[in-house]
Amino acid sequence: MTISHNELANAIRALSMDGVQAANSGHPGMPMGMADVATVLFTRYLKFDPADPKWPDRDRFVLSAGHGSMLIYALLNLTGYARPTMDDIRNFRQLGSPCAGHPENFELAGVECTTGPLGQGLAMAVGMGVAERHLNAVFGDDLVDHRIWVIAGDGCLMEGINHEAIGLAGHLNLGRLIVLWDDNKITIDGAVSLSSNEDIPARYRATGWHVVSCDGHDPVDIARAMEEAMADPRPSLVQCHTVIGKGAPGKEGTSAVHGAALGAATVSETRVALGWTSPAFEIPEAIAAEWRAAGQRSAEAHRAWDVRLKASDAKVAADFTSRMAGDLPASIEGFDAYLADLQASPKTVATRKASEMALEVLTAALPEMIGGSADLTGSNNTKTKSLSVLSRDDYAGRYVNYGIREFGMSAAMNGMALHGGVIPFGGTFMVFSDYARPAIRLSALQRARVIYVMTHDSIGLGEDGPTHQPVEHLMSLRVMPNLSTFRPCDVVETAECWALSLENQDGPSLLALSRQNLPQLRTDVSENLCAKGAYRLVTAQAARKVVLIATGSEVEIAVNTAKALEAQGVGADVVSMPSWSHFDAQPESYRNDVLPDDALLVSIEAGITMGWERYTGRKGLNFGMTGFGASAPAPDLYDHFGLTPEKIAPQILAALN
Amino acid sequence: MTISHNELANAIRALSMDGVQAANSGHPGMPMGMADVATVLFTRYLKFDPADPKWPDRDRFVLSAGHGSMLIYALLNLTGYARPTMDDIRNFRQLGSPCAGHPENFELAGVECTTGPLGQGLAMAVGMGVAERHLNAVFGDDLVDHRIWVIAGDGCLMEGINHEAIGLAGHLNLGRLIVLWDDNKITIDGAVSLSSNEDIPARYRATGWHVVSCDGHDPVDIARAMEEAMADPRPSLVQCHTVIGKGAPGKEGTSAVHGAALGAATVSETRVALGWTSPAFEIPEAIAAEWRAAGQRSAEAHRAWDVRLKASDAKVAADFTSRMAGDLPASIEGFDAYLADLQASPKTVATRKASEMALEVLTAALPEMIGGSADLTGSNNTKTKSLSVLSRDDYAGRYVNYGIREFGMSAAMNGMALHGGVIPFGGTFMVFSDYARPAIRLSALQRARVIYVMTHDSIGLGEDGPTHQPVEHLMSLRVMPNLSTFRPCDVVETAECWALSLENQDGPSLLALSRQNLPQLRTDVSENLCAKGAYRLVTAQAARKVVLIATGSEVEIAVNTAKALEAQGVGADVVSMPSWSHFDAQPESYRNDVLPDDALLVSIEAGITMGWERYTGRKGLNFGMTGFGASAPAPDLYDHFGLTPEKIAPQILAALN
Repeated sequence: MTISHNELANAIRALSMDGVQAANSGHPGMPMGMADVATVLFTRYLKFDPADPKWPDRDRFVLSAGHGSMLIYALLNLTGYARPTMDDIRNFRQLGSPCAGHPENFELAGVECTTGPLGQGLAMAVGMGVAERHLNAVFGDDLVDHRIWVIAGDGCLMEGINHEAIGLAGHLNLGRLIVLWDDNKITIDGAVSLSSNEDIPARYRATGWHVVSCDGHDPVDIARAMEEAMADPRPSLVQCHTVIGKGAPGKEGTSAVHGAALGAATVSETRVALGWTSPAFEIPEAIAAEWRAAGQRSAEAHRAWDVRLKASDAKVAADFTSRMAGDLPASIEGFDAYLADLQASPKTVATRKASEMALEVLTAALPEMIGGSADLTGSNNTKTKSLSVLSRDDYAGRYVNYGIREFGMSAAMNGMALHGGVIPFGGTFMVFSDYARPAIRLSALQRARVIYVMTHDSIGLGEDGPTHQPVEHLMSLRVMPNLSTFRPCDVVETAECWALSLENQDGPSLLALSRQNLPQLRTDVSENLCAKGAYRLVTAQAARKVVLIATGSEVEIAVNTAKALEAQGVGADVVSMPSWSHFDAQPESYRNDVLPDDALLVSIEAGITMGWERYTGRKGLNFGMTGFGASAPAPDLYDHFGLTPEKIAPQILAALN
Repeated sequence: MTISHNELANAIRALSMDGVQAANSGHPGMPMGMADVATVLFTRYLKFDPADPKWPDRDRFVLSAGHGSMLIYALLNLTGYARPTMDDIRNFRQLGSPCAGHPENFELAGVECTTGPLGQGLAMAVGMGVAERHLNAVFGDDLVDHRIWVIAGDGCLMEGINHEAIGLAGHLNLGRLIVLWDDNKITIDGAVSLSSNEDIPARYRATGWHVVSCDGHDPVDIARAMEEAMADPRPSLVQCHTVIGKGAPGKEGTSAVHGAALGAATVSETRVALGWTSPAFEIPEAIAAEWRAAGQRSAEAHRAWDVRLKASDAKVAADFTSRMAGDLPASIEGFDAYLADLQASPKTVATRKASEMALEVLTAALPEMIGGSADLTGSNNTKTKSLSVLSRDDYAGRYVNYGIREFGMSAAMNGMALHGGVIPFGGTFMVFSDYARPAIRLSALQRARVIYVMTHDSIGLGEDGPTHQPVEHLMSLRVMPNLSTFRPCDVVETAECWALSLENQDGPSLLALSRQNLPQLRTDVSENLCAKGAYRLVTAQAARKVVLIATGSEVEIAVNTAKALEAQGVGADVVSMPSWSHFDAQPESYRNDVLPDDALLVSIEAGITMGWERYTGRKGLNFGMTGFGASAPAPDLYDHFGLTPEKIAPQILAALN
């Protein structure tokens, strides 16, 4: 008995509408509309192995229109992944089920990245495409030769990040990237024409893409379009003309099917219309078998790849395997020597420069590190001697000119990290972390090892003024779960924070770095003290009455404030606190020792003070910013905003009396 | 004696390079490269009156490439604005000078908006274009008939927001918007071709724009292109082929002139090359006179406009004047009656629904309110009966379908607010405040009256899961200066917060609103208690040992927790705290009364707890989130994350023992 395309596709439709109906929540329209396209992709072209979801040379499939999550849950189940089980699908959107409202890579193998925030799936796919071409250039066709497939909706294409992502992909000519656009002409509010009259194919062509169209419900036409896309050396947009909610009588083609359950009556009518007679969550065995067979399609390719890996040069194979696993060497060549040199010959440099110095060592030792900047290379100090430019003509390069695309850069780095085999880091001005913030959040949620190099981290940047001076950013980043936010105070702490960032395999790290020069305050490099998050840098000479807590460029100010207090006979510790999250993870005894109850607790940081009460309490003192900065040379600003030892020390003395 | 175009343009070049040289900081390349285009615009086409910079019918000039700030400082000085004086320019980028590193509308009349964060100037100009067409539709050609001119660089065009902004402008066919693109092929890192190979004119055409090119150094050709742009009914992109740093020997046309002073030697050589013999900051009187004459060009048009305003219907003229001044009526029709109705008949509704109910009254009373949503109209509850759609066919409408463009919407709202005459409000899911964040920051910095309607404000949104559940957002918004962040707990507080948002003429407001229903906790509506930021909602019955502080949907939980504590004989106040910033502005005595030292201070909020120590101290208790949420029905999530009276009350009792 032959199973028809329609029967295969209707299995997706049925599971999708039934899953949403059971949850009484979700988005049936997209999975039903794209069921035909997905069926052709998974049964004919996608290279994947449900028995080994992490096979490094698999194609990556990204559901950028993440609200259509039932589509991928249905596909993973039908093609034979261990999860989701049918019970998982029955529990769609319930606590404990891996079938979350939007696809989450940390819940299910086979979900390559977490999507839902629109546009970012496609932008992460661009990063996966960069990683694929780079690893191909390094390890060759035998080991790395796969595609990135994306399903994207009108929302993904309307978001600003779409422009940044496709600009980067077009510039780098990522021919392995194929975007299947669900062109159903419907958004949540109604027709796309309510808010856009753009000629999307023309825009993609203007950005260096190949564009092909198809009838998204005709499997022959879909296959033709996919084959044209695969044959073209450019990244491809496949315009799939579809009907949202295809198959749901009276509702298909309208926004009514976008984001709500169809209702029991329409579900029944849809069953009739589709000729689907099975009860909810049941798939006829013949159809199920055909889907399982589709899941075996790449098994032979996988075995052949295993053979090629074994036949590879042993060191190459070991390197490849270790890089894909994300392992670091037990010790990083040259790093201890670099620290020893700092101990011997202290350096006064901006921490952005200190970052470059650390990176010189790290990028020389770790070929998996791929750097870049959003058009601020000379300011972010992200390009080292080891890094040549990664371009369409040389994918082996390790430095990406991301262009003026902070969000696109960050999302691409997420994709690179999730692809595996590379460790991305990228720079911009810290104030523009706002532009990148939605991607930083996805780094954190997905626990992707992405390292953000955020320079010019306070009013210390000076003349560029308040539009360019981060004030609230440090605090707003500290409150983001899973993100390690570091603000080192000198060249030694910067090196230590870089080491911690690389070791942080399960999440993103962000380095807040100064524009201005800072003296080296640490000479003992025997222990990575930043790993504790905060530590006593200076111990009070007189009886301790004050503990000054500072970060980054204000640690020097705290040290000088302590001197001024000691000159008045007031003992003051200085605590450097490069990372709140690391400090919070220390034992209570350590935390109480560093921040004792019996001293006046004082924070000094050139950022918004709100939040510091976590450590200084309701009765402590907080020196910092309460509003936006101003345009002037940095020393003038520190004086203007009262962030000098001369202005701080008297206030502390007054508070003690 | 006739003054040549070149002499006029070279006055800009000289002031720009001299200002940057004196500061030894800044960006000479753009002003020197665009001096010819700006000269043609200001001497021939721009409608403006330096003697009355706020004349409502002036053209708006937006320097989206804000780093080229010396261009506008030179233009304002030369054309006769009161500020900047030549001394101001001498003190470019110094404390106290209005000539900040990037143009700031709050420093100088004639600067229409604060720019520097790339792409946002152009996007704000789109909003100004919306306001212009809307007010034209309402008040007619006699009172409102002007253009929006933008100078944008490659950075503005590469940023993602460019896509959103031009998509909206193309969709609304804002023919009064003309973007002068400084096509100099250079970015900070070098050639644009390092990071982009996009056909920008083709992309603009694909989005419904008219595109025309010119030689950006040939005044005749520039004028031709501007006239073609003005004649075309579509928004226009004028591609100006320019040489960055035009006139600087050996440096022009390279990234070396982008962001650093030319150096004394090159400044001298440039003087020679330009034939500019005057010392720094001196303009030959004949050239200065010609520039001043250019500043008088629209004086007659201004007088004619004054006449038309006086000839207008008295009520129309009064309405127009009052709206442009941003005045609100002394009392808003129907609002007190609405509150009285709530007092009489309490309502249990989601605060997003409560927001819609308040908006029904407000939008009926205030024709200046223009609403919208980023494609979540039915979820954000932003469209009321009074609002019809603003479209290219009906600019009189008051509801904008912004499309899936959160950032573009927010930047456009900034432009609308800064244009004046309208009060914009717009909605999206609160988690996507991240997408809009760079524009929210500019609302705050510019103190623009924009009202952000952020619904689905916690894990209470339920099944959509962690990608859609704001967790860190409330706190990250509270730390932004000048932004009033409100989180009302019921239908009454929502109305009060709306009133406060409208009254907040000097800054943006943001309403965090629930998806889920909430009981009405307030029945006494005699005073707007939200104006105090926090207040005692429930007074302890037994001797007070605990103060529970909560916001939004968790106030109900706090009330029930208090009941559980009282049942154990433990007295507990409940404080509702809809606005931290309003509470912080209260007298110390009030704050100490609400949050006394002698009670255990406990916060309950379904967001990240970090930051609440500001009010609860180091020894208080903080109930909330410490990580991301999960996908499940809301009640399951509240239980899972321990945010129920049953789980909270025992921990408080334990802490008291």
